[in-house]
Amino acid sequence: MTGSELVRGELADENGPFLARELARLGLVCRRITIVGDDPDLLEAAIRDGLKADLCVISGGLGPTHDDRTVELLAKATGRTLIVDPHLERAIDAVGRRYARNVGTTYHGYDEGVRKQASIPERAHVLGLAGTAPGLVLQHERCVVVALPGPPHELQRLWPAALASEPVRKTVLARVPPFEHRTLRFYGLSESTLAAALEQAGGESGGVTVTICARDRELTCELFVEPGAEARADKLDSALAAVSPDTLFSRDERPIEEIVLELARAQRLTLGAAESCTGGLVAGRLTEVPGASDVFRGCVVAYADEIKRSALGAAERTLANHGAVSAECALELAEGARRVLGVDVAVGITGIAGPGRGTAEKPVGLVFFCAAGPDARLEQKITFSGERDQIRRYASVTALHLLRRLLIQIGHIEV
Amino acid sequence: MTGSELVRGELADENGPFLARELARLGLVCRRITIVGDDPDLLEAAIRDGLKADLCVISGGLGPTHDDRTVELLAKATGRTLIVDPHLERAIDAVGRRYARNVGTTYHGYDEGVRKQASIPERAHVLGLAGTAPGLVLQHERCVVVALPGPPHELQRLWPAALASEPVRKTVLARVPPFEHRTLRFYGLSESTLAAALEQAGGESGGVTVTICARDRELTCELFVEPGAEARADKLDSALAAVSPDTLFSRDERPIEEIVLELARAQRLTLGAAESCTGGLVAGRLTEVPGASDVFRGCVVAYADEIKRSALGAAERTLANHGAVSAECALELAEGARRVLGVDVAVGITGIAGPGRGTAEKPVGLVFFCAAGPDARLEQKITFSGERDQIRRYASVTALHLLRRLLIQIGHIEV
Repeated sequence: MTGSELVRGELADENGPFLARELARLGLVCRRITIVGDDPDLLEAAIRDGLKADLCVISGGLGPTHDDRTVELLAKATGRTLIVDPHLERAIDAVGRRYARNVGTTYHGYDEGVRKQASIPERAHVLGLAGTAPGLVLQHERCVVVALPGPPHELQRLWPAALASEPVRKTVLARVPPFEHRTLRFYGLSESTLAAALEQAGGESGGVTVTICARDRELTCELFVEPGAEARADKLDSALAAVSPDTLFSRDERPIEEIVLELARAQRLTLGAAESCTGGLVAGRLTEVPGASDVFRGCVVAYADEIKRSALGAAERTLANHGAVSAECALELAEGARRVLGVDVAVGITGIAGPGRGTAEKPVGLVFFCAAGPDARLEQKITFSGERDQIRRYASVTALHLLRRLLIQIGHIEV
Repeated sequence: MTGSELVRGELADENGPFLARELARLGLVCRRITIVGDDPDLLEAAIRDGLKADLCVISGGLGPTHDDRTVELLAKATGRTLIVDPHLERAIDAVGRRYARNVGTTYHGYDEGVRKQASIPERAHVLGLAGTAPGLVLQHERCVVVALPGPPHELQRLWPAALASEPVRKTVLARVPPFEHRTLRFYGLSESTLAAALEQAGGESGGVTVTICARDRELTCELFVEPGAEARADKLDSALAAVSPDTLFSRDERPIEEIVLELARAQRLTLGAAESCTGGLVAGRLTEVPGASDVFRGCVVAYADEIKRSALGAAERTLANHGAVSAECALELAEGARRVLGVDVAVGITGIAGPGRGTAEKPVGLVFFCAAGPDARLEQKITFSGERDQIRRYASVTALHLLRRLLIQIGHIEV
């Protein structure tokens, strides 16, 4: 991953995680993700380091500007000369013109930039264009090198072509040994409890590698099972699942918002939300999923108390007697959302994300939740610790899990 | 940055970007961010590699589970023995008990995990606890090593203590040469256009280093100016600013949502939104900013067309004649939000995020915006290219920039 913006932290690298996930899915072990800036010496050193692996994927530094140096340094590190691909030159120029037309700006012909982006190391194979940058693949001794553009969507668009390319298929993918991969995901279970259970069940051994990862109150436990270790994996799997069956919410990698949407879809129930402290994050997550619109109808972000009253019909009395951050208000938000949005099931969230406005009685991090359906209701109250953005994220995830529990209860679903 | 979840892409590293940003702010150059998994050999190699730098910050692998190996390997790489700190042991145990009480679960005393987390390399200095993991600092030959917990909020909580520690202050920070840092941020300008302008102005030279970074249609251009190069920097700065004065929106690092909130706050205007395809992302971004509540009142996420009618009063006729994805509907959303939420200024967003539902006339990526205030209104129509999440992100940023432009117009502000 290259780019000075990455080593100065102006941008978080999204490509490393994407590529790592893809490689894991294919059974390849990602040994190291290195992020360097545009400094030629450091970048060249990182490329030379990468050339020692079986597969080296480089992202970024393929752009038209002076600080994009990946291709030039890749050519240097592999001892090749740069040649201008005339085909590529025309294609890149056309993309620039089309982009300018779409956003309604003038196209500043920038021949030097086009020529730069059309220059590739000799014997490199072009994977196609995404944006104005070409993806490249080449073989250097026993290493297959894939160079992809830095913008994540461009990289992701070219990735299938990289996988389909002959060097990657024949030299890399053909050599991957088979393995099995199992996932157990828990919500609200502590890492220590799961770790203790793992140890009690004999820990990692006999061809089973286990990883545990906590994020936003969700715990993902993964078992990597070598051929022949299936019985050992079954035993471990059962032991871990038995730790806290209530908190085990998934055995696949679908995000909780997708699980919620599917539970609602299966029961032909529509969903909505009324958010205060989470400020739209729950709606934002639900609508991330393509096709959410057949289930999720809408949300009212009632950030100000007047909106809780005027747009959701929260009673003056509730707000006066219990305050906006109360179980009573969460209930009125959920029921208000059901009524105003005309949905079957809605979740209401109200709390104090901080950093200010906390009191001894109602500290920063205190959040009330209510998920309400036609004949069922679930409430929750949690005091999260952490910073504002973390409290908001935790609260969003908790709201989604509460919706999941309510939908399972409504549908009498065995889990 | 350590953790198998990172090299398998289950989690994107947030600590690298945070630390890189902090180091850049202090005038330190981050040469490389390395992400490795929990494999002891690879982790040890990465630590040994890090020990060659002046400052090596390690994050992650300080937890209670078997795959947390940072401290043990750091001790090995620096040739120290591990000792149990009894003080630390008691503190970690107390945190575990408190956490269990807060979330209402039973505390499973997990002595082995506590003892593991209380084990530190001899002569290491404890920076304090965040969660159950201690931060550590130690000096090894000419390298200062800081080890911090992996969860981003825990790392960030301990970071000030790391900076304040004697080895970091005296051995690292005292040696940083002075430099000046300038930022120019553009919205909607192409990278090539800025690159061409930079070249025309003589490019990087004379003690000024320039980086250009594009993200979500925003372009951040940074000038790193060595002492004595101020005149050269002024010249470059003016040349770049002159490329497209309309698109230059900021000279600092505040995110656009913060700029919007401050513009509204200064004019005592309240803000709201009505979102369709962005599904709550605009509200989510505005409420990320602490103190947003004095300006931002709320939002209606009108994902389904019925909600556009029932909750926002969009006219049946508009939807029937022009469709929900139209300039007319964006206007009704904005005006509906102003009315329903009782706010001065609101933005309406409606479009097709995809992947389905695009037509020849209204393709995926087409989004209409309207920002409306008491006596002013701005409209915009853009066809974004990219995937669903990218289109949604682009649209959110565009909505915020439209709000900024409207607020500047309302306030007759000179920019």
